[in-house]
Amino acid sequence: MKSKSFVSINDLSREKILSLLETAEKFEENPNREVLKGKIVGSLFFEPSTRTRLSFETAANRLGASVIGFSDAATSSATKGETLKDTIMMVSSYADVIAMRHKLEGAARYASEVSQVPIINAGDGANQHPSQTMLDLYSIKKTQGTLEGLKIHLVGDLKYGRTVHSLLHAMRHFNPTFCFISPDELRMPEEYRLFCKKNNIPFTETTEFNEEVIADADIIYMTRVQRERFSDIMEYEKVKNCYRLTNAMLANTKENLRILHPLPRVNEIAQDVDDNPKAYYFQQAQNGLYVREAIICDVLGINI
Amino acid sequence: MKSKSFVSINDLSREKILSLLETAEKFEENPNREVLKGKIVGSLFFEPSTRTRLSFETAANRLGASVIGFSDAATSSATKGETLKDTIMMVSSYADVIAMRHKLEGAARYASEVSQVPIINAGDGANQHPSQTMLDLYSIKKTQGTLEGLKIHLVGDLKYGRTVHSLLHAMRHFNPTFCFISPDELRMPEEYRLFCKKNNIPFTETTEFNEEVIADADIIYMTRVQRERFSDIMEYEKVKNCYRLTNAMLANTKENLRILHPLPRVNEIAQDVDDNPKAYYFQQAQNGLYVREAIICDVLGINI
Amino acid sequence: MKSKSFVSINDLSREKILSLLETAEKFEENPNREVLKGKIVGSLFFEPSTRTRLSFETAANRLGASVIGFSDAATSSATKGETLKDTIMMVSSYADVIAMRHKLEGAARYASEVSQVPIINAGDGANQHPSQTMLDLYSIKKTQGTLEGLKIHLVGDLKYGRTVHSLLHAMRHFNPTFCFISPDELRMPEEYRLFCKKNNIPFTETTEFNEEVIADADIIYMTRVQRERFSDIMEYEKVKNCYRLTNAMLANTKENLRILHPLPRVNEIAQDVDDNPKAYYFQQAQNGLYVREAIICDVLGINI
Repeated sequence: MKSKSFVSINDLSREKILSLLETAEKFEENPNREVLKGKIVGSLFFEPSTRTRLSFETAANRLGASVIGFSDAATSSATKGETLKDTIMMVSSYADVIAMRHKLEGAARYASEVSQVPIINAGDGANQHPSQTMLDLYSIKKTQGTLEGLKIHLVGDLKYGRTVHSLLHAMRHFNPTFCFISPDELRMPEEYRLFCKKNNIPFTETTEFNEEVIADADIIYMTRVQRERFSDIMEYEKVKNCYRLTNAMLANTKENLRILHPLPRVNEIAQDVDDNPKAYYFQQAQNGLYVREAIICDVLGINI
Repeated sequence: MKSKSFVSINDLSREKILSLLETAEKFEENPNREVLKGKIVGSLFFEPSTRTRLSFETAANRLGASVIGFSDAATSSATKGETLKDTIMMVSSYADVIAMRHKLEGAARYASEVSQVPIINAGDGANQHPSQTMLDLYSIKKTQGTLEGLKIHLVGDLKYGRTVHSLLHAMRHFNPTFCFISPDELRMPEEYRLFCKKNNIPFTETTEFNEEVIADADIIYMTRVQRERFSDIMEYEKVKNCYRLTNAMLANTKENLRILHPLPRVNEIAQDVDDNPKAYYFQQAQNGLYVREAIICDVLGINI
Repeated sequence: MKSKSFVSINDLSREKILSLLETAEKFEENPNREVLKGKIVGSLFFEPSTRTRLSFETAANRLGASVIGFSDAATSSATKGETLKDTIMMVSSYADVIAMRHKLEGAARYASEVSQVPIINAGDGANQHPSQTMLDLYSIKKTQGTLEGLKIHLVGDLKYGRTVHSLLHAMRHFNPTFCFISPDELRMPEEYRLFCKKNNIPFTETTEFNEEVIADADIIYMTRVQRERFSDIMEYEKVKNCYRLTNAMLANTKENLRILHPLPRVNEIAQDVDDNPKAYYFQQAQNGLYVREAIICDVLGINI
C-alpha cells in the first residue's frame, strides 16, 4: 500500500536531486511525451495557488494524463467536515497520483501515509514546497552551468519564506556561500543559521540591500516582504521600499548574475528589471513545467 | 430530441439494474476503455459535491472523454438569473452527455425534458441520487455474492437521507429484510414504511444502536446525523453519539458483514473501524467509478 | 515574441471575417478534428462567464487540446496582488494559446503585447467580445444566406451592450440597415450613430417596441435591460416590460426573420417564443463552438 511520494526536499540525496534535474532537462528538450496516457492526476488545492496548480496541470497534460481536482477548499468536501484522511482515501481510489497544496504543515506527509497512490507536496503551509526548490535548483544549474560553489544572496522575508528555507537545505550538497539580506524583523531564523554552521556553509548577514552588497552575487533570490508579517505597520512602511530591486542597481553586478523570484511578485522587483538579461524569474517559472514533469514520472516509476 | 436519461432509481427494472452492475464489473476489471474518445461530458454541479463530481469526471476521463463544467453555481450563469432550461439548452449544444447536481428536487427530470443530450442525475436535492444507489447495490452484491435475501440495517438519519430512501426502493426487487435504526426525530418516514408493507418487505424499527441490534446484519448502512436537521439543539446533543459505530461493537457480528457509508462521514464511524476488514466504505466509494462508467456508456448507447 | 492575437473585431477586414466564417462552416460539418493534439489552451476567466468559457473549452477539447485555467479571479494569483502582465507571462510559458475574459477594458490588448503566445479576447469589460460578434455574424449568414443588405433591429440596452456595438462595427462591411429600439436612458451612443453616418449606414431610432416596428426586420437582436444600469429605479420599472418579445408579436413578421440574443436572457424574451421557428438564440449559442474552433486555429496558424 505504501507508495513512493515526494514530500520534502530533505528526503532527497544529492544523487537524487541531480538525477531529477537530468530528467527535467530531457523534458525541456521535448515537454510533450505521452508516457502517462490513460492515467489520472489528482490536483487537490485546499488553498489556491494558480501558478503551482497550472504548472502541475500543464505537466500532467503534456505527459498525456487527465486531471481531476479542485482549486480551493471551498468547493471540496472538507467544508462538510470531512477529514484529510477520508478525502485522500477517496481521491487515491480515483487518481494514479496526487499533487496537493494544503495550509497545514505536515499535511502532505500525513497524506502520503494514508494514500494508496504517490503524493506530491505542492506546498504545505510554512513547511515545504519541494517542487519549487527543484525548479530553483534547475534554474541555478541552467544559468550558472553548475550548482557548485556559488554565491547566493537571499533577499526579503527570510523568516517566513519557505522557499528560501528549502533552497538553503537543498544547497548543502553543493558548497554554496550565502548572503542573507533582510530587515531585522524578518531575519533568517536561528535554526537555519545553525544548520549552515553545522554543515560548514559560510554566510554573511546584513540589513542593507544595495549595489555593494550584491556586487559579487551569482544568484539573487528575491522574495516578497508581506505587510501581514508585521505586527507594527510603521515597521513595514519603513522597510518595504528598502528591499526593492531596481535596474539601476544591476549596473556593476557580475555578468553571470541571474535574478530569481518564486513569484508572484508585488513590487519588490521594479518593472524595469524585466527586460534586463539578468532577470530570470519568468523563465524560472517556465522551468517549473519540466521539473514537475520529472517529479510526476519519478514517483510513478516511469523512465523517459 | 428526447434522449435516454438516468434520472431516478425507480425508473430502473430489476433486469436493468443487474445489467448495469454487470457492465460495472467489466469496468472494475479494466477501467481504462477509450470508448468515448472525441466526446465531451458536461459536469454541472450547481451545488458542490467533490466526491460525486470527481468520480464522474474520473469515469469520463478513463472512458477517453473530455470534461467541461463548473463545480458550484457561484461561477455559473445561474447567478445572472438564467433559468435552468437555458443553461441546459446551452450546455447540451456543447456536450454529448451531462451529469448534473442541483439543490432543487425534480431538477434532473426537468433538465432531461429540455436537453438534447442524455442527463445523468448526480443528485437533486432531497429527492434522488441514483448513481449512489447503483454503487451501493454494486458494493452489496460484490461483498455478499448476491443481492437476494439480505438483512440490511439502515442507521442514522432515515428521515432526510436520500441515499437510504433510494436504496430501499431499489432493494424491493431483491427480497431484503430491513432494520431501521434512528432517533425518533429522524425516523424512516411513513411513506417508506408503507412502501415496505405494500411490497411485502419485512422491517423492524428501533432507536437503539448496539451490539445486539446489529448481530444478524449482513449490511450496516451508516449515515450522518446532521446538526442542522434538529430544531432543538439539545435533542441533537442527546442523540449524536448514540449513532456512532465503534470497532468494539463489531466483535460478535457476522463474518460476511460489511459496513457501508455514502461519505463524507464526520464522526458516526470511529476511526478505529477503518482497519477492520468489515469496513467497506472506501472501496464502496471506489466502486462509484465503475458504476458511473457503466451509466455513462448506457445512456449513450455504447456497449463494451 | 509578438504573436498573432484576436483582440478586437475592428482589426478584422471583410475578407478575414468571411474566411473565418468559412472555416467555422467546416467545423459545423465536423467539430471533432484533432489538429491541436499535444497543445494546451489557457482559459483565464478573471470574471465568470459560463457560456463563453464552456464554449471555448469545448472548442479546445474537440480540437484535441487540453485545457488549464481558472473560472474566476478569486482562485487566481491576482488576489495576491500579481499584475496582469506577470500572470500572462506565467501562463504563456505553460500554454500554447490563451483565451481570456477580464473586467477591464483594454486588458486583452495589453495581454497580447506581453504574451509569448496568441491571446484571444473572450470579453474585456464594456469594450469588446469579438468571438461573440463572430458567432452573431455566423448565425446571420447561416439563417439569411448572406450578410449583405439586411435589416437588423437592435433592441434593449443599446448604451452599455458591447455585443450590439461590436456587431454594428462588424456589419459596416455588409451594407446593413439598422433600427435602434431602446428606452431613452439606454439609447445607442452618439459615437455609434456618427459611425453609421460616416459609413453611410442608414438607421432609424425609436423607443417603441411593437409589431409594426419589427414588421420588416430580417434579424431582431435582443439584449437584456439590466436593472443596475438605471440610477432611478422607477425608470427601470417603467421600461422593463416594454422591451420584452412575445410570441404574439411575431405573427406578421417576415418568413426569414430570425431572433438572436447573446444570452443569458432573463425575461426579455418570453418562454413561448422558444418553440417558434424564428427563435434562433440557442442555435446561435451552439454556433459559438464552430466559430471559436475557427478562431483558435487561426491564431495558431493551423489550416483545416
